[in-house]
Amino acid sequence: MSATRRFTLTLSCPDRIGIVATVSTFLAEHHGWIIEASHHADEIEKRFFMRHEIATDSLSISIDQFRDRFERIARDFQMSWKVADHSVKKRVVILVSKLEHCLYDLLARWKAGELDIDIPCVISNHDTWRSFVEWHGIPFHHVPVTPDNKEAAYDEVQRLFEDARADTMVLARYMQVLSPKLCRAYPGRIINIHHSFLPSFVGAKPYHQAYTRGVKLTGATCHYVTEDLDEGPIIEQDTIRVRHSDRPDDLVRLGRDIEKAVLARGLRYHLEDRVLIHGNKTVVLR
Amino acid sequence: MSATRRFTLTLSCPDRIGIVATVSTFLAEHHGWIIEASHHADEIEKRFFMRHEIATDSLSISIDQFRDRFERIARDFQMSWKVADHSVKKRVVILVSKLEHCLYDLLARWKAGELDIDIPCVISNHDTWRSFVEWHGIPFHHVPVTPDNKEAAYDEVQRLFEDARADTMVLARYMQVLSPKLCRAYPGRIINIHHSFLPSFVGAKPYHQAYTRGVKLTGATCHYVTEDLDEGPIIEQDTIRVRHSDRPDDLVRLGRDIEKAVLARGLRYHLEDRVLIHGNKTVVLR
Amino acid sequence: MSATRRFTLTLSCPDRIGIVATVSTFLAEHHGWIIEASHHADEIEKRFFMRHEIATDSLSISIDQFRDRFERIARDFQMSWKVADHSVKKRVVILVSKLEHCLYDLLARWKAGELDIDIPCVISNHDTWRSFVEWHGIPFHHVPVTPDNKEAAYDEVQRLFEDARADTMVLARYMQVLSPKLCRAYPGRIINIHHSFLPSFVGAKPYHQAYTRGVKLTGATCHYVTEDLDEGPIIEQDTIRVRHSDRPDDLVRLGRDIEKAVLARGLRYHLEDRVLIHGNKTVVLR
Amino acid sequence: MSATRRFTLTLSCPDRIGIVATVSTFLAEHHGWIIEASHHADEIEKRFFMRHEIATDSLSISIDQFRDRFERIARDFQMSWKVADHSVKKRVVILVSKLEHCLYDLLARWKAGELDIDIPCVISNHDTWRSFVEWHGIPFHHVPVTPDNKEAAYDEVQRLFEDARADTMVLARYMQVLSPKLCRAYPGRIINIHHSFLPSFVGAKPYHQAYTRGVKLTGATCHYVTEDLDEGPIIEQDTIRVRHSDRPDDLVRLGRDIEKAVLARGLRYHLEDRVLIHGNKTVVLR
Repeated sequence: MSATRRFTLTLSCPDRIGIVATVSTFLAEHHGWIIEASHHADEIEKRFFMRHEIATDSLSISIDQFRDRFERIARDFQMSWKVADHSVKKRVVILVSKLEHCLYDLLARWKAGELDIDIPCVISNHDTWRSFVEWHGIPFHHVPVTPDNKEAAYDEVQRLFEDARADTMVLARYMQVLSPKLCRAYPGRIINIHHSFLPSFVGAKPYHQAYTRGVKLTGATCHYVTEDLDEGPIIEQDTIRVRHSDRPDDLVRLGRDIEKAVLARGLRYHLEDRVLIHGNKTVVLR
Repeated sequence: MSATRRFTLTLSCPDRIGIVATVSTFLAEHHGWIIEASHHADEIEKRFFMRHEIATDSLSISIDQFRDRFERIARDFQMSWKVADHSVKKRVVILVSKLEHCLYDLLARWKAGELDIDIPCVISNHDTWRSFVEWHGIPFHHVPVTPDNKEAAYDEVQRLFEDARADTMVLARYMQVLSPKLCRAYPGRIINIHHSFLPSFVGAKPYHQAYTRGVKLTGATCHYVTEDLDEGPIIEQDTIRVRHSDRPDDLVRLGRDIEKAVLARGLRYHLEDRVLIHGNKTVVLR
Repeated sequence: MSATRRFTLTLSCPDRIGIVATVSTFLAEHHGWIIEASHHADEIEKRFFMRHEIATDSLSISIDQFRDRFERIARDFQMSWKVADHSVKKRVVILVSKLEHCLYDLLARWKAGELDIDIPCVISNHDTWRSFVEWHGIPFHHVPVTPDNKEAAYDEVQRLFEDARADTMVLARYMQVLSPKLCRAYPGRIINIHHSFLPSFVGAKPYHQAYTRGVKLTGATCHYVTEDLDEGPIIEQDTIRVRHSDRPDDLVRLGRDIEKAVLARGLRYHLEDRVLIHGNKTVVLR
Repeated sequence: MSATRRFTLTLSCPDRIGIVATVSTFLAEHHGWIIEASHHADEIEKRFFMRHEIATDSLSISIDQFRDRFERIARDFQMSWKVADHSVKKRVVILVSKLEHCLYDLLARWKAGELDIDIPCVISNHDTWRSFVEWHGIPFHHVPVTPDNKEAAYDEVQRLFEDARADTMVLARYMQVLSPKLCRAYPGRIINIHHSFLPSFVGAKPYHQAYTRGVKLTGATCHYVTEDLDEGPIIEQDTIRVRHSDRPDDLVRLGRDIEKAVLARGLRYHLEDRVLIHGNKTVVLR
């Protein structure tokens, strides 16, 4: 985004006549300068989705006053809605295991200023990447996970996440299944990268499944984590071509490239408040 | 688009505070139900672009009254603007030479109802595809072009286009350079498909140029025709991978696939009034 | 392919030392000029795949003699093998229902000389496209299929295919499930285009399944037909991006583009004898 | 590649009958087990290209003896040829300036074992990334380049490259033009990543050029460095879609993704000896 300070208003509600008129009149009355706007009417679900980027300084009232006054409209239209101030950096905790390609990629984007976030800490079930993370000036927490300590381990992860006052948790090829309690605690705030083009090849070893079926493309899926493994709302996906000479090892290699690209795009949409969840689907307003 | 009757309001103007507020208030006052909306502020050019799809029946006034009343806003903001009624089919004249792949593709899309247009006629400098076109129930005009008759030939094309009361002319691999007079007559209404990824390989035989340079992708460009050959505003582009074993003939074959896909997409954007021209560039509001 | 007359030798066999040496020595002894060669050793299946294009006129013996003499090598190595003379056009029968996009696309490629085949006839369970097919000078057979006459109908299809002395049957969005008897009769010779990225969304209405799951890409799969619906060996696949505003109807439209492209590529690989089947997978030697 | 020790034989020569027969007979006589083979006959340039991967242990002679004996065949056919032992790791020196995305990406691939190379050192005209590189256990050399010291600076780079006994130099967004002397010293051994789809937008600030022309895709090109800036043989290219809302800054961001992907692929082809240069073009035998 450009240098202009801005906030986003995102909402969805049952579709009916007058939503846009009401919202835009409200914005006009408070002199909100709309930098970017996207609407989407889902004619099958009969639901309306909207996102505005508004120049903060154009507003005749404060963001808090904006929230207060908008509340009444939101109630009338039964809106799910959110106002996010983009002059406040989002706080993103990264979870990682031994595979490092997504970690490298995210930190490279953060160093380059492309991911304009704070990373309060990285958490891992292995100590492998401690000094690499610490080289970046980011605290590293080693929280081992064993079949016996799962509950305690995820309580510890939750405590670290809370202590960090974090907004979003990213599973950057974190090879563990989170506890149902943790999944439930942060709906729409935990992002995973799955190493297949869902719904193909759910579960473990998708690259071997793909090899066995003889598919000609492999893919990756960035999705929100829910209690149902690999079934959460999909944010972003992509595929990459597989050749006849590619063995499962090569699929793993090709997969790394598509995983890091898809995770980076999905995370970016999430951080820019472009992803609206409805049921088990997302609307990504670009 | 869905069954709802709709019209589009598209506009661009110098960017300043209040455009969206003014337009959306105007729409709200006349009960216009916004089905789809897209905004774009070009921060470098300081220009604002907007497109609304509005349900025709939601409006408290007629489209003609809408035009009349909107005129004053448009003048205040120095808008280039257009209101298009999508219950009226656009009329598209296709020009073709001997290569038929784009013609087949466009007629297939028309037969399938994907291109919801009228095709009043097909014009060609060869008689090759007469019976194929006529099988589709579309009149076919053979207008030969020779070095000596160019001016007269393009006057004839222009007369046929005018007689057909057509909106848009599509050069579907029409292998002739139109006369400057014809180009000037229909700015933003003549669409060409160029067989390279412009600005690479302008001019003739781009596939041979691409082969000689050893590029690893070949492409196609759909653009509006201006007097400057291959320099008009670009609507859509795409590329396709070239392998070491591909000879110029193979590039021609690969090119056919990418040409027809890019032309179909570009034409679709144009017909849906998604393409706003500013200077030598387009904004495609999807 | 270029003007040089050529034949292809394709084979696969259990992998062991000496296959390439034996075959290449055999070719060298008979002065076979290799225009193109591809090898692939599947280290997991322990199987070797090979394809040679050989200039027919370079050979010191006839193709029939070549077949006779190669037989001994093939037996020693337990080869599945085939010699195909590319100066003889392949004969391809097309089956179609009411959806015409793949039919248009295949006939366009055939008219353009890109598909260098004979099309002895088109068979359909509807009479819809008779005059279009006949305009191309190709016989059209209407073979209605009802729940009651399936067996008889597919016996008729088989009779037409046999009478046409055809090599390959293409289901160009033929919306019927062939009889098991017909599937069994022509293993590796019946090609289908399925309108999803298999193994996602098998069975009916894949676009609606895709819409419901909220995937961000839709795809198509070209595969050989076996008795197990949608489970045959995959020849080619591709995907195309879906936007939040795309309804099932739009997925159908996007699907048409990817279906015709994937079918055309898969058929091309098949016709050039590039596809070697092993178990339920293919090796495509390009 | 798999665990089997292997070497590659790559060659190109004027096309004539008997090349494959001669080479394959030679391989068969020395019991060379061919793991992978690719041939390409360029019918326009009348030149033949070939690459074999051969299992080292299958050979009845040493690699040195192989080279000696093959020399005679090579002379007869006027071959450019090379035998490379893949059990010896290639040594790759990386040059970088202030932009780090390609550096991060290459080091991530090296850490993951995907790039099976030695990196004897990283050289930069800035000291920015010293500690990051040194964290990886790789020596870092700061060689400042000013308008006045160019010759001396590149002599120093060359000395470091020689001292490192390196095979390949990678310009990973190294924002300086090498001296002609250095370019000449290592033909086919210096790899650059250019931030446009060449031949579009040669020279400086290609993203701004692309923005100004209004292209709908941006790209990257991996090529060998020659004295003619941006004109060397192209190894790999790719493109990525640009949206109307993308400003030059966004093109830079999108470009980073495509640059690192294209550089990684191009470098991989080079390291696996898949790239054969002829004139100003490459044949990449995959």
